[in-house]
Amino acid sequence: MTVFGLESNQVMGLAAAVSAVAGAEVDESAAAEIFARAAWTGIAEPGDSVAGALVSSLGAVAALTSLVDSWTIDRVTVECSSSGVDPVAPHDLALAFDRWRPRLVSSSVVMALRQAARVSARLILPADHVWPSAVDDLGVHGPIALWVRGVDAALESLPTSVALVGARAATGYGEHMAMELGAGLSDRGVSVVSGAAYGIDGMVHRSVLASGGLTVAFLAGGVDRFYPSGHDALLGRIATVGAVVSELPCGSPPTKWRFLQRNRLIAASSVATVVVEAGRRSGSLNTAAHAASVGRPLGAVPGPVTSPSSAGCHRLIREFDAVCVTSVDEVIELASGMAGDAQQPELDIGLDAASDRLPPDQVRVLDALSVRSARTTADVARRTGMSMGATEGVLGLLALEGAAIEGEAGWRKQKR
Amino acid sequence: MTVFGLESNQVMGLAAAVSAVAGAEVDESAAAEIFARAAWTGIAEPGDSVAGALVSSLGAVAALTSLVDSWTIDRVTVECSSSGVDPVAPHDLALAFDRWRPRLVSSSVVMALRQAARVSARLILPADHVWPSAVDDLGVHGPIALWVRGVDAALESLPTSVALVGARAATGYGEHMAMELGAGLSDRGVSVVSGAAYGIDGMVHRSVLASGGLTVAFLAGGVDRFYPSGHDALLGRIATVGAVVSELPCGSPPTKWRFLQRNRLIAASSVATVVVEAGRRSGSLNTAAHAASVGRPLGAVPGPVTSPSSAGCHRLIREFDAVCVTSVDEVIELASGMAGDAQQPELDIGLDAASDRLPPDQVRVLDALSVRSARTTADVARRTGMSMGATEGVLGLLALEGAAIEGEAGWRKQKR
Repeated sequence: MTVFGLESNQVMGLAAAVSAVAGAEVDESAAAEIFARAAWTGIAEPGDSVAGALVSSLGAVAALTSLVDSWTIDRVTVECSSSGVDPVAPHDLALAFDRWRPRLVSSSVVMALRQAARVSARLILPADHVWPSAVDDLGVHGPIALWVRGVDAALESLPTSVALVGARAATGYGEHMAMELGAGLSDRGVSVVSGAAYGIDGMVHRSVLASGGLTVAFLAGGVDRFYPSGHDALLGRIATVGAVVSELPCGSPPTKWRFLQRNRLIAASSVATVVVEAGRRSGSLNTAAHAASVGRPLGAVPGPVTSPSSAGCHRLIREFDAVCVTSVDEVIELASGMAGDAQQPELDIGLDAASDRLPPDQVRVLDALSVRSARTTADVARRTGMSMGATEGVLGLLALEGAAIEGEAGWRKQKR
Repeated sequence: MTVFGLESNQVMGLAAAVSAVAGAEVDESAAAEIFARAAWTGIAEPGDSVAGALVSSLGAVAALTSLVDSWTIDRVTVECSSSGVDPVAPHDLALAFDRWRPRLVSSSVVMALRQAARVSARLILPADHVWPSAVDDLGVHGPIALWVRGVDAALESLPTSVALVGARAATGYGEHMAMELGAGLSDRGVSVVSGAAYGIDGMVHRSVLASGGLTVAFLAGGVDRFYPSGHDALLGRIATVGAVVSELPCGSPPTKWRFLQRNRLIAASSVATVVVEAGRRSGSLNTAAHAASVGRPLGAVPGPVTSPSSAGCHRLIREFDAVCVTSVDEVIELASGMAGDAQQPELDIGLDAASDRLPPDQVRVLDALSVRSARTTADVARRTGMSMGATEGVLGLLALEGAAIEGEAGWRKQKR
């Protein structure tokens, strides 16, 4: 086997170094798969649906071969047609080959693999046991492989994790809420996904680390060079006790486009997404939109209307049906799909509140009694608008409860 | 005609004094109707559905006669059966007669009418042109008549009014929002309904008065004695340029029960209800529940999660489908039934935000350019993951826009 002019043992060595199962034997076909998927993470931009469809149809190795060997579009179409995957239009395939070709540089794949081995990053494939299979909900827009620095436990916790995201320009209120929710989820054993940005994201990760919980950071660039650089130490700690994940190979710089695509991984890999604090045009609203589009429950933390930093959260609640969440319990309710289910009979509210849970007729009789002046039963009946009989019954009940006292001149309310 | 032993001319005099149309002629039958409905406002507690059904079936005058003349339940049932109104169970009728009888005191009706005339309160009947017919949505729980001190314009504005309510225990934030929304609605010609309580309600009325708008206060007791007493001057001003309304006759004290029933009038008489600020057990949540139960749009203003004074609003948004409203425009959207209709394609959000509305391929090319070092088209194509042709096209476009510059060594980004 030769790929990109590399000898089989070279490919196998590189592949073994980044294999998901550290120290495991990697046979030739496994190595080819690892190498091909690693190459694809550098050739196709995140979210490239033609790459996703081609890899699904032909497998990563044959898909790479079709590109390296410059198959005709006709041949690719024929080979794809035997798979069950929806066919890609020849025109789109041609455009895709055109945009992939400039990136078909064997040295960059090799460099990315070597750099990954150097920083102990591993390449997780869809077949691996730690693959977060929820991202497969993205279909052909899903990742072809994931580069990871971290512990298996963090990846394994993703199927029950919650994403907490928010704006870089956070207020003290927003950071307080990020801390509350991050720590609260950790304390309940729920792992927390975020994007490692300044502001809300950073506070989320920090609060989880402080609580000894599991946290996963998805990056928009390679996992070898942490971004933002001010979070280098933070990301280093996450890589030690949690996981730092990216679909881009080592050496890839983050770009605006990649931030937007990274957001879809945050949304898809977790059970629910909560926007903690976000202005009207915060990038975290994009994560929220991804969560909604892959059918994940979406929550937003409200804030003062007078704070522009909460305007995005309010917009999500108003226009995008995000659930208003105000506590850790409510985040967990959201994630377990129970939000809003516990609806009570509507007229209960307020009635309870105002009457301290007393039955309405007792409230009416108590209202009609005075602490100072005694009133006859007839007078109380008139004041309450109840019958004499009903009034007598309720007065007797209130007397038993010690709330009303009967004297010679009539009934009085017990002083409290 | 004699009622309660009063001569016809006495009844007509009293009726004319409180007639909705000041100074108008009141004939004998109109006077009997006014007198009977005035009596019913004192005999039945607000929301008494048996009274509502009986008055609907027999008319107010015959219904009163049935009570005064102590008709048998059988006779009442027979007389009612010819009307189209749903019959009341004989057992419920018997209970109702028992609770009404203690209040059948002619002197109290006469006193209430005299006191109303003294404070220039009028009695508005369902047939009157200023009757707020939206309250008829309450069905048999609706008011039999309304006592009013104020101007016709305020009553006539009710069909397009918005109710703004909230807790007595208001924070500076809540009062600020009450002021903003009250003044904002006034400035747009929308009249505002509230309950004249301390805290949010009071601030709502004040802000409308300050803006020269129309405001209507619904009270839980008679309109002769303003409650709370600390709002005596405020209510006096509302009675002069707006309207103070109650379904209870003059002399009636407010009770907890009546506050809860008063809330249904606030909710039903206006187009939409917005809770401005409310704690978890605020009585204003009861108004919200009434609004929902009569099918009026319900809004709530969010606040800091850390403020218990906003917990009720958040609960309404979470559990009772209240619309999150953050501005006057959004209140008006709510009232016009358009809230939430302007939903956008979901993935727009964030994508726009992060890319400053540039097309995605331009964002990608700009991201791949540097201000300092020139890059070849092939290099840019590789970095963006786009084809050579597409990259050339976008670079040309960016050059035209002055965003990219081509030099001898290649392309650079224009410094901003």
